[in-house]
Amino acid sequence: MPDYPAPDMADVDIIEVMKALSDPIRLHIVRLLADGAPRSKTMEGWGVDITKSTMAHHFRILRESGLTFTLISGRTHAIQLRRSELDARFPGLIAAVVGENSTD
Amino acid sequence: MPDYPAPDMADVDIIEVMKALSDPIRLHIVRLLADGAPRSKTMEGWGVDITKSTMAHHFRILRESGLTFTLISGRTHAIQLRRSELDARFPGLIAAVVGENSTD
Repeated sequence: MPDYPAPDMADVDIIEVMKALSDPIRLHIVRLLADGAPRSKTMEGWGVDITKSTMAHHFRILRESGLTFTLISGRTHAIQLRRSELDARFPGLIAAVVGENSTD
Repeated sequence: MPDYPAPDMADVDIIEVMKALSDPIRLHIVRLLADGAPRSKTMEGWGVDITKSTMAHHFRILRESGLTFTLISGRTHAIQLRRSELDARFPGLIAAVVGENSTD
């Protein structure tokens, strides 16, 4: 993925991950991606009322922090949470921030 | 604690918590407080090479975000992670960010 580089998980810094998660839109995106399935980057279905360029900014922060991959298949771009890698590197973090452990 | 107000846990916003944790010094402080025991605010024992005023700034961010209480006993000020409250509100979050689940 030369156009959309992402760091090796071993080089991912928890501080950068926390910064990436410190935004309501990005946390919302991560929650929608929590199952680890790729999701099209097209604006439909994200449930946010922001411009495409702002959304692209958030996607970039998520990718550069190590939280996501951008997947390219022809003209389709998708984003995927690096869930299994993140669960291995920071056990319990994604489950906690997306609220999987919450009882309410 | 009128001089050092802290939000009710029900009002604590995960975004503010994530912002508070998005700093290496503050994450270090939270790790040292992870057992939930109060710790004196005096500079000794924190293992950081920063000014007292910068440290005070970090303590304030932690308190205002809802992560900590400042406890006053005479001339002694201590800081305490609101561990049990946080564990109830954001299950698994503190354990994940302080690395309690990590195997390395």
